[in-house]
Amino acid sequence: MRIVSADTGGALLDDGYNPIGLIATAAVLVEKPYKTAKMSIVKYADPFSYDLSGRQAIRDEVLLAMKLAKKVKPDVIHLDSTLRGIPLRQLDDPTIDALRISDRGKAIWHELSKDLQPLAKRFWSETGIEILAIGKESVAVRIAEIYAGLYSTKWGIEYALKEGFARIGLPRYMKVEVREGMLWGESLDPKEGGLYGEIPLDVEGFEYQIYPNPIARTFMVFEVKKE
Amino acid sequence: MRIVSADTGGALLDDGYNPIGLIATAAVLVEKPYKTAKMSIVKYADPFSYDLSGRQAIRDEVLLAMKLAKKVKPDVIHLDSTLRGIPLRQLDDPTIDALRISDRGKAIWHELSKDLQPLAKRFWSETGIEILAIGKESVAVRIAEIYAGLYSTKWGIEYALKEGFARIGLPRYMKVEVREGMLWGESLDPKEGGLYGEIPLDVEGFEYQIYPNPIARTFMVFEVKKE
Amino acid sequence: MRIVSADTGGALLDDGYNPIGLIATAAVLVEKPYKTAKMSIVKYADPFSYDLSGRQAIRDEVLLAMKLAKKVKPDVIHLDSTLRGIPLRQLDDPTIDALRISDRGKAIWHELSKDLQPLAKRFWSETGIEILAIGKESVAVRIAEIYAGLYSTKWGIEYALKEGFARIGLPRYMKVEVREGMLWGESLDPKEGGLYGEIPLDVEGFEYQIYPNPIARTFMVFEVKKE
Ligand SMILES: [Mg+2]
Ligand SMILES: [Mg+2]
Ligand SMILES: [Mg+2]
Repeated sequence: MRIVSADTGGALLDDGYNPIGLIATAAVLVEKPYKTAKMSIVKYADPFSYDLSGRQAIRDEVLLAMKLAKKVKPDVIHLDSTLRGIPLRQLDDPTIDALRISDRGKAIWHELSKDLQPLAKRFWSETGIEILAIGKESVAVRIAEIYAGLYSTKWGIEYALKEGFARIGLPRYMKVEVREGMLWGESLDPKEGGLYGEIPLDVEGFEYQIYPNPIARTFMVFEVKKE
Repeated sequence: MRIVSADTGGALLDDGYNPIGLIATAAVLVEKPYKTAKMSIVKYADPFSYDLSGRQAIRDEVLLAMKLAKKVKPDVIHLDSTLRGIPLRQLDDPTIDALRISDRGKAIWHELSKDLQPLAKRFWSETGIEILAIGKESVAVRIAEIYAGLYSTKWGIEYALKEGFARIGLPRYMKVEVREGMLWGESLDPKEGGLYGEIPLDVEGFEYQIYPNPIARTFMVFEVKKE
Repeated sequence: MRIVSADTGGALLDDGYNPIGLIATAAVLVEKPYKTAKMSIVKYADPFSYDLSGRQAIRDEVLLAMKLAKKVKPDVIHLDSTLRGIPLRQLDDPTIDALRISDRGKAIWHELSKDLQPLAKRFWSETGIEILAIGKESVAVRIAEIYAGLYSTKWGIEYALKEGFARIGLPRYMKVEVREGMLWGESLDPKEGGLYGEIPLDVEGFEYQIYPNPIARTFMVFEVKKE
């Protein structure tokens, strides 16, 4: 099974460890044995003008996943919305009302589906590829989340080399490590079966540390400063 | 404390990683220090004709636990149903209605208790052993689940040696390893304190791999083929 | 960020592994990198006359946290009550009613706030330090929980040296180790990023083992006897 997925993650944090805005949407191609990505692409947001209460993340994820899928032609796309795997193209208003989710969740999807449902329908008729709202059950979504953390870290390093310092909140229970010519990331949760990722990084002249976010248990902070 | 418990787990998976049917009910005897089983027995189902929406699992578990308990005379039996440890023999209709669980859970227990409650009552009067609906709080239930995974893996290996290939969905966050003369299994969750199990396996001529189930995060797949 | 937090944990267990009463309230000072405590103090309860259904724990925690905070002057106090970080001094009756928690939770806070809210208000006006009801999101609360486990273990050792034997239920998914001149404790959950603690221990003449509590999955038991 060849799966494309996307997720948005990694946040620029303020002095109080609160998120200012999200940084990276990553799309990944995941193949057996489903532990890492064969390929990944990224779209960076501007965390300084990020609407944390809006729905930009999921729009960015659908569009970036479709972009990668057009290139690599997977069997399916996994979307980070936990709706038991229902195809996005089937999420019209009556179907949304029938979902067993909160009223707030339904309101969000009524708004999102206006443009995303026709988009998914057209994508499916062009490519035959379904976009499934599988969310937390998907390993590919989690790998996309790890890659969002990797790209956010890279963004943070480049930002710190210009501005002097950056504090990045990584996605849930993952860590990163600077290695020779690359940035390595892995899940801290052994229950997931050893998920990991790596992206190229050819930058020097910085110091970093990784430690728990004191106000967000199980989320790590990547802190970097120019040497 | 000497505890007998039983659980049903391990699934034959189709090409899309969906469960076709469950494979093994294992009953275990667990003693201090409560990390593994002192003894285990198994009852195999036929995954090809398994009613995943029915209640056969819990019936098989009660009967198999009672069978092992008659032999080893434990202090108590732990059942995989999370009802705060209420004794099964006390689960009559008024008591079920008073439980703080969903209506669907109550409906299920109204049906099950018709034969299981008298069975448990008679078993208690004969042996003095209570069957407690303790579920997720019980370490013995989790060890039984690990053993169900081990026996399902063994079933999968024997099936693959006949049919060429098998794909087994293991119970939640556990892995197995083929070792000298035996099959080793362990929980992937260090929070559980290092639970493990082993069963004899004297079979050759197969290759296997273990990897995350892409559509069921934290569940591993055991895939085996005839060499 | 310098944080003081407190938590009550560690239980004396009976033969059936049920808690008789809680043992230790620990207050800790936590500083970057937020993995352990810089300082800790303890208040022991009497587990033999402990009202497990009452609210003494949270009162002990507020008072002990304030005691340590007066000494070390942290930026903030983290309280183990998960109410999204609302300051304790703001928890008057209308605010409690507006919280999105269960009716039972509201009833508990209506009772507690009678004395704790004025106490927090006065403490804030004297020191400028907020007491935030942040609960499960706080790493400092978790570190306080680990220290409560350490002090409960120490209490258990001293009790066993007098009475012969003690069985202590540790706080959730943590373990302890007796090392040279000290007692070491750590979280068993790698998702938390490697939280640990140590307290001095200069006692000999005992044997111990640590193993899973059979009726409380993910909780370990520390069992100690006089040699
Ligand atoms: Mg997401
Ligand atoms: Mg079960
Ligand atoms: Mg607490």
